[in-house]
Amino acid sequence: MTSSLVVLSGGLDSTVCMAMAARQGPALALSFDYGQRHSVELDRAAAVARHYRAEHLLVHLDTRSWGGSALTDASIEVPVNGGDDGIPATYVPARNIIFLSVALGVCEARSIDAVYIGVNAIDYSGYPDCRPEFIDAFRRVAEVGQKRGVEGEPVDIRTPLIAMTKAEIVRAGIDLEAPLGLTWSCYREGPAPCGGCDACRLRAAGFAGAGLEDPALVGG
Amino acid sequence: MTSSLVVLSGGLDSTVCMAMAARQGPALALSFDYGQRHSVELDRAAAVARHYRAEHLLVHLDTRSWGGSALTDASIEVPVNGGDDGIPATYVPARNIIFLSVALGVCEARSIDAVYIGVNAIDYSGYPDCRPEFIDAFRRVAEVGQKRGVEGEPVDIRTPLIAMTKAEIVRAGIDLEAPLGLTWSCYREGPAPCGGCDACRLRAAGFAGAGLEDPALVGG
Repeated sequence: MTSSLVVLSGGLDSTVCMAMAARQGPALALSFDYGQRHSVELDRAAAVARHYRAEHLLVHLDTRSWGGSALTDASIEVPVNGGDDGIPATYVPARNIIFLSVALGVCEARSIDAVYIGVNAIDYSGYPDCRPEFIDAFRRVAEVGQKRGVEGEPVDIRTPLIAMTKAEIVRAGIDLEAPLGLTWSCYREGPAPCGGCDACRLRAAGFAGAGLEDPALVGG
Repeated sequence: MTSSLVVLSGGLDSTVCMAMAARQGPALALSFDYGQRHSVELDRAAAVARHYRAEHLLVHLDTRSWGGSALTDASIEVPVNGGDDGIPATYVPARNIIFLSVALGVCEARSIDAVYIGVNAIDYSGYPDCRPEFIDAFRRVAEVGQKRGVEGEPVDIRTPLIAMTKAEIVRAGIDLEAPLGLTWSCYREGPAPCGGCDACRLRAAGFAGAGLEDPALVGG
């Protein structure tokens, strides 16, 4: 019996979520190939799922056909060194809205009671779909927009990292023996993390704040 | 300049929505290949889009890989003659949640201000994601979960048919000269509408209530 679904990008936060979910019972990992330039994260997601012996469902969605993000459109530059004011160009229109929608569908079809999503509104890029207001709005969607919410208990949307600092997330991952060395956070294609994009900078600050070395860099 | 996006299934209701949207200016038609058994509706959606000289965006989403509906799983029978109590087996988990999510993403990426979706909570199959409560919940998602909602005006989710009877929808379509003869409502594969499923029965009652013949049947 699968006890939860984890939206797994292959990055640090979602892998710590996977570690938290796996403590509760068998988890299904759900990843999205949405045309991201840093598709290396999907290989890392698969590796993390294997680490937890979890079923891994990969959903393809061609967001490139409608565009609008530096993460999916090579003609838009990924900003480095925190150059953006406001919501940065790496914002992907409706990304977590779409991810949670599909997650609700999979949970309902498979009778899975909970979704874990590693959104964080503390050390983050300022995306609106990572904030508690958004999650609360989506919980209401699960309550009134799905058969299982109307007839019984809605899918439980869990965001254990939402109010943690990146350093706290790193420490939680270490405590849970999450395979952080397998994870990929960089918004760019690689082969190695660029070190300058928001994702790299937040990650580095998190490990520094926790007083730890990043096993993904040490291992490389 | 595209003024709106229409979630277009190729059925009666979404085609009447298309007619309403097209009066306001150029509309983008958005359809989903989600593994529906009645994929003939996608050809009809393309024909309706052509009729309105509208760009037609077809998004593929393999909901069969997670299952859970008579509309996508040939091993689950499509109920006929109103046999079901409650929400029927043709309910597709999170279908309109996913459709609206993608619609919000496309609108934001393309700077389109409004989405039309032909949900109806009067003469309908009882799906929870066709009701005003659900639409209101999703409007909140657009307000707090998207960059454009946070920084300015959210995408406007329009449901002009939500409180109309099927007969009123038929009459509106006739008044707007919508190409109702091109549309497909049946939940089954065809080649002709089965006449017994919920969608066929609601449609037939709508044309009967409006005192009109169904051009899709007359034409056949």
